[in-house]
Amino acid sequence: MESWKRKLRMGMVGGGQGAFMGGVHRLVAALDNEVELVAGAFSRDPENTRKTGEELYLDPSRCYGDYEEMARAEARLPDGERIDFVSIVTPNSMHFPVAKTFLQAGFHVACDKPMTYSADEARELVELVETTGRVFALTHNYTGNPLVREARRMFTAGEMGSVRKVMVEYLQDFLMYPHEKEGMKQAVWRTDPAQSGAGGALGDIGSHAVNLLEYITGEKIVELCADTSTFLPDRVLDEDANILVRLSGGGKGTVAISQVATGEENALRIKAYASDGAIVWDQEHPNHMGVYRYGRPKETWSRNASYVSDISSSISRVPSGHPEGYLEAFANVYDGFIEAVRRHLDGSPMARDEYVFPDVHDGLRGMLFIERAVESAKAGATWVPLE
Amino acid sequence: MESWKRKLRMGMVGGGQGAFMGGVHRLVAALDNEVELVAGAFSRDPENTRKTGEELYLDPSRCYGDYEEMARAEARLPDGERIDFVSIVTPNSMHFPVAKTFLQAGFHVACDKPMTYSADEARELVELVETTGRVFALTHNYTGNPLVREARRMFTAGEMGSVRKVMVEYLQDFLMYPHEKEGMKQAVWRTDPAQSGAGGALGDIGSHAVNLLEYITGEKIVELCADTSTFLPDRVLDEDANILVRLSGGGKGTVAISQVATGEENALRIKAYASDGAIVWDQEHPNHMGVYRYGRPKETWSRNASYVSDISSSISRVPSGHPEGYLEAFANVYDGFIEAVRRHLDGSPMARDEYVFPDVHDGLRGMLFIERAVESAKAGATWVPLE
Amino acid sequence: MESWKRKLRMGMVGGGQGAFMGGVHRLVAALDNEVELVAGAFSRDPENTRKTGEELYLDPSRCYGDYEEMARAEARLPDGERIDFVSIVTPNSMHFPVAKTFLQAGFHVACDKPMTYSADEARELVELVETTGRVFALTHNYTGNPLVREARRMFTAGEMGSVRKVMVEYLQDFLMYPHEKEGMKQAVWRTDPAQSGAGGALGDIGSHAVNLLEYITGEKIVELCADTSTFLPDRVLDEDANILVRLSGGGKGTVAISQVATGEENALRIKAYASDGAIVWDQEHPNHMGVYRYGRPKETWSRNASYVSDISSSISRVPSGHPEGYLEAFANVYDGFIEAVRRHLDGSPMARDEYVFPDVHDGLRGMLFIERAVESAKAGATWVPLE
Amino acid sequence: MESWKRKLRMGMVGGGQGAFMGGVHRLVAALDNEVELVAGAFSRDPENTRKTGEELYLDPSRCYGDYEEMARAEARLPDGERIDFVSIVTPNSMHFPVAKTFLQAGFHVACDKPMTYSADEARELVELVETTGRVFALTHNYTGNPLVREARRMFTAGEMGSVRKVMVEYLQDFLMYPHEKEGMKQAVWRTDPAQSGAGGALGDIGSHAVNLLEYITGEKIVELCADTSTFLPDRVLDEDANILVRLSGGGKGTVAISQVATGEENALRIKAYASDGAIVWDQEHPNHMGVYRYGRPKETWSRNASYVSDISSSISRVPSGHPEGYLEAFANVYDGFIEAVRRHLDGSPMARDEYVFPDVHDGLRGMLFIERAVESAKAGATWVPLE
Repeated sequence: MESWKRKLRMGMVGGGQGAFMGGVHRLVAALDNEVELVAGAFSRDPENTRKTGEELYLDPSRCYGDYEEMARAEARLPDGERIDFVSIVTPNSMHFPVAKTFLQAGFHVACDKPMTYSADEARELVELVETTGRVFALTHNYTGNPLVREARRMFTAGEMGSVRKVMVEYLQDFLMYPHEKEGMKQAVWRTDPAQSGAGGALGDIGSHAVNLLEYITGEKIVELCADTSTFLPDRVLDEDANILVRLSGGGKGTVAISQVATGEENALRIKAYASDGAIVWDQEHPNHMGVYRYGRPKETWSRNASYVSDISSSISRVPSGHPEGYLEAFANVYDGFIEAVRRHLDGSPMARDEYVFPDVHDGLRGMLFIERAVESAKAGATWVPLE
Repeated sequence: MESWKRKLRMGMVGGGQGAFMGGVHRLVAALDNEVELVAGAFSRDPENTRKTGEELYLDPSRCYGDYEEMARAEARLPDGERIDFVSIVTPNSMHFPVAKTFLQAGFHVACDKPMTYSADEARELVELVETTGRVFALTHNYTGNPLVREARRMFTAGEMGSVRKVMVEYLQDFLMYPHEKEGMKQAVWRTDPAQSGAGGALGDIGSHAVNLLEYITGEKIVELCADTSTFLPDRVLDEDANILVRLSGGGKGTVAISQVATGEENALRIKAYASDGAIVWDQEHPNHMGVYRYGRPKETWSRNASYVSDISSSISRVPSGHPEGYLEAFANVYDGFIEAVRRHLDGSPMARDEYVFPDVHDGLRGMLFIERAVESAKAGATWVPLE
Repeated sequence: MESWKRKLRMGMVGGGQGAFMGGVHRLVAALDNEVELVAGAFSRDPENTRKTGEELYLDPSRCYGDYEEMARAEARLPDGERIDFVSIVTPNSMHFPVAKTFLQAGFHVACDKPMTYSADEARELVELVETTGRVFALTHNYTGNPLVREARRMFTAGEMGSVRKVMVEYLQDFLMYPHEKEGMKQAVWRTDPAQSGAGGALGDIGSHAVNLLEYITGEKIVELCADTSTFLPDRVLDEDANILVRLSGGGKGTVAISQVATGEENALRIKAYASDGAIVWDQEHPNHMGVYRYGRPKETWSRNASYVSDISSSISRVPSGHPEGYLEAFANVYDGFIEAVRRHLDGSPMARDEYVFPDVHDGLRGMLFIERAVESAKAGATWVPLE
Repeated sequence: MESWKRKLRMGMVGGGQGAFMGGVHRLVAALDNEVELVAGAFSRDPENTRKTGEELYLDPSRCYGDYEEMARAEARLPDGERIDFVSIVTPNSMHFPVAKTFLQAGFHVACDKPMTYSADEARELVELVETTGRVFALTHNYTGNPLVREARRMFTAGEMGSVRKVMVEYLQDFLMYPHEKEGMKQAVWRTDPAQSGAGGALGDIGSHAVNLLEYITGEKIVELCADTSTFLPDRVLDEDANILVRLSGGGKGTVAISQVATGEENALRIKAYASDGAIVWDQEHPNHMGVYRYGRPKETWSRNASYVSDISSSISRVPSGHPEGYLEAFANVYDGFIEAVRRHLDGSPMARDEYVFPDVHDGLRGMLFIERAVESAKAGATWVPLE
């Protein structure tokens, strides 16, 4: 049967009770009624996996003890039952082994960010994706915002001219307080290099920031100079970073990251100034985008208004003036992935440049960014090339 | 089996291809993975119903020719298969007959607004709901916004003192252009009294505005004075209204409604000033709410921040700083309804005052508002009691 | 000597120590270095007048015991010394006798609002101004905002089409607390009908609101329906009003006024929707104005930007991006008045339609508004014609 | 006569017809009626000086041919006539010689920024001010904003804890277009190193940005790393800079400067995050300031509201809700200077730490910033110490 005539079957690794991102991936993958979750290895704790499966109304026989068992068992199921893809929502350090296992077992993969624990793993993953020919999406969810796509269109279609200055900031105050000392899970792994990798805030939110910069402007960061700080006692990973970047097209910019920015919640903001125009976007107010032209009143573009292109209106679910948010944007990343998986299943796989979602190559750039920024910071904030 | 151990089964009347609200109801009812759509009478056109069902991956045998057939057939199905409730998303004029049919067939009902075609129908529906004892939800979706619930809590818990002035506006420019002359469906029925009822903008958006006013403040509108306008040629229904209202607790207010307010998209905004505090909320920016106290800096409350009550954080899906929107709020209305349906199915039905969602009585108030406002306007904008 | 070769000489009645508006008028009249204050009768208390004069570096011989003495004495001074005009900044109830005295003595007059104590006085003042042929400015200061002038230009030049809906609100919380019981001067006279006239908030801020509505749109209010409230015990004047208005061109609107709107400071805001465009302006953020067109992104116009007309850029003192405020706008009203006075002094008086500032006729409309609104409210909020 | 019993007498160098800043200084120095302009050397062109004097209603005998003549002649005038201070509003390159001349002639000096042409001149000026004992104010006008003073109070009083991250941006698009090729004066000197000094945007607006950072937080920049760009052909000075800074107290930050940021007007914005709080302020919206505390709703402080300290309410002219702007803030800098001059004239000169205005030492830091930033940029954006 042609894949478009049925829902896709999704499996999940990670996302048991107590985790946050698993629930988000389940909700957004299913948002447009094109996917049903049918299997999972939600936790190393079998009891957690059992309960999670029950809450999700799953068949207990497809709630697996671990991800390897799941990959093997699913691979053995007949065509009309077997999962079509797996979503990986484990802690960072497990992304690579899980992705590798499922790719090698022939499954498509949607993976949370940052992609791997190290750039070396990321390079190996690039190879694996190319060898296996499976679809791999990295869920940088902010790229799914319709106005982010509209901005990207403006820049890549040449409407904005050449990029001169880009300012990205991603500010939170989540780590202002030593929650990890009280055992709060989200804080524990984020402040533990063994689980997070080399970067603290750099990995957790910095990777989003640079991905957004490159996604919107179409520019590549070629060099960076990163100055990081750790303010709270007993912490070893960076909590805060100020970074200068130089772009492939000659523009320059700043990337400011913090998880100790008092009062900020999830302030991912980008301002991109180019020779023929500028855009300003703030993910906390994602339904509007400032569009500036020299000598003209500032314009506020509204998601899905009559004047936006099909690129962004086609991924809007409700009319302009009816706000969409984090989940809808996230779902748009999945929708792109789902379409690519269907195309693969039906024998006409997409070329990489048809992907609207970040993929394994973007994931590698994210890992390079983290490692290079840490390297720069350790050397006293010197300039280092990204690649 | 206890209803909490399975997804509820939903049926739908209306919402075929070309309609808008049907898709919204389907999406939001299923958002939290507690509901599955299993049956529908989506259109009077059987071909439309068939295609809609196919797109939704439904069993063709449960895609019915009309709502009466559907009610009969579903009622005959065994317990483990039969729908638990029906969602009504037809044009306004069909709400009443459909609701009546399903209530009498023993089903719970979620119905789009305005509730009926006339206040008389609304009164009959109140009786039907009371007689049948079924759960009836009127999907005034804006009541599902977490910060709307938080505001309601502030007012009803007495934190704001006595209400003095409430200003509600609901402004759109959707009808600035005579789209109905070009056959645009949304405009055609909204400008046709036979389909819309006595009110134009009054019914379409005014009913939301007054519901929000009463929902948040806990006050009832006791009297109103409505001045309406129709600007475009060949239109008969009101496009715009300016209304004075007097509230049960002695406060007063304005309700301004327009579908010809150039440049406005879906600007539903409320400012409620009371003796001990005030709130300001704008549905186009629903994740933040202004909270004012005399002699203090204005505060901006953020949905699901640490300082909001459980009433609003319990219905937030993602952390503060991660925007939610129209669909999530709508889903919260459904979630309240779903909980009430489960409680009914499991033999411990909720009392009406446990409902967090607007019900048949609110729907009657909405219909009274429309009829009284039209009556006031026809008399030259005189004062009329709401009840 | 041609008047343009010297500063104009200003006298002042009212504005002694402890008063607020006197200082504002002195500052703004002199802002552009075209006026010098040379004489005053600042208070009924001679000691206050003496001290005020001393603080202002005035010649003690021109600090008069009362306004009648001042008018007589100044009229007797020779041409090169005598004041050119007087500014009246007394409590409302004194505006009329002082204005009458100075007009009859041959002086031009700038007068604070509301113009008189009653509409009858206002009618008499219209006659006096016409008989004496002197320049009379009513200092509705908000009309001096460059973007208000720009908006007025848009409407009166026909760029916006026909006005459909205007919403004006003027909200403060100044009278939330019974300051008058503790003797606070500003609150005492505002809550005392003997000093304020028939209107409380209606007179104090309502007159600004309706003036702004008429000034920007070029429409006249023909009918109104006003519902007023008084919440605090022992108060007799209105603290709050909700008003429906009908305009000369067929549009309609709301005017919401309050001095008990918790948390609001000086929130004078106007939204004017017309068939070809709309403007949104907020005096608390006066350097920007929303300009909306159907089917286009919302624009934010910036005071004195390259795209605004000479009408507003010519009265801006600093470039766009450099905020101006209340005082600069107020000074623009004076500048218009000063120019009219110079034209009169030099023998080529302006026609009334050359005035950019509100004059005695606008003042009469303001007084009619107050009286009619009070009349409407007393009758239970019925419709009354303005004239 | 005690100086408080008369207006101070002001002289001006620069500020002839065609110049912009001269008019601003004249207006703001006189805003509070404590200063009168009595003398000037407005231009090298005597005809310009004559006309400027005439427009300003000055005595022609005190409109001098050049600043040296002016200093000599004024010094010879008797006590009751001679100017008390001079304001210097020439192009940057003339600031030093003029200041030196007037200081040596015994006059107090208010000087526009940046203070000198080079850091060497700045060092010499520090000595001159110390030797002569005169009052010297550097008119970094943004320091006169009441909420900037309030923020400074919060930081220096210890209410915010230790500074962790400061982000300052000063963005304009003034130089997006090669206005200098069409002879526009403001663009010509700004793009000419002979007139501007080593820095382009760094000197013109960067000096404001770093002054604001240090003024508000009380921190000193100890090291910086500056990456500059010049995009337009035939330009040699920087148009844009991205700078990392390290602060004396261990915090870090970014300073982003541009005069080619499409669509930006005069966007000087600061966000300062410290261990116990944060402030966010934008000079284009100067009447409000964000104040954030961990775990609390964001607050918006309003200039001159009841809850701000006397430090900021004492320099507000109008109540909260009545916007003040650029000129009022600038006048506050002058008012501080005027008070210091009066104290000096009356024999009780202020200690430097009583100054609320930037002085010669701040001016030196500004010049060091410019030179060090240029030096860093030339070396490829390496770290350099500020001092």
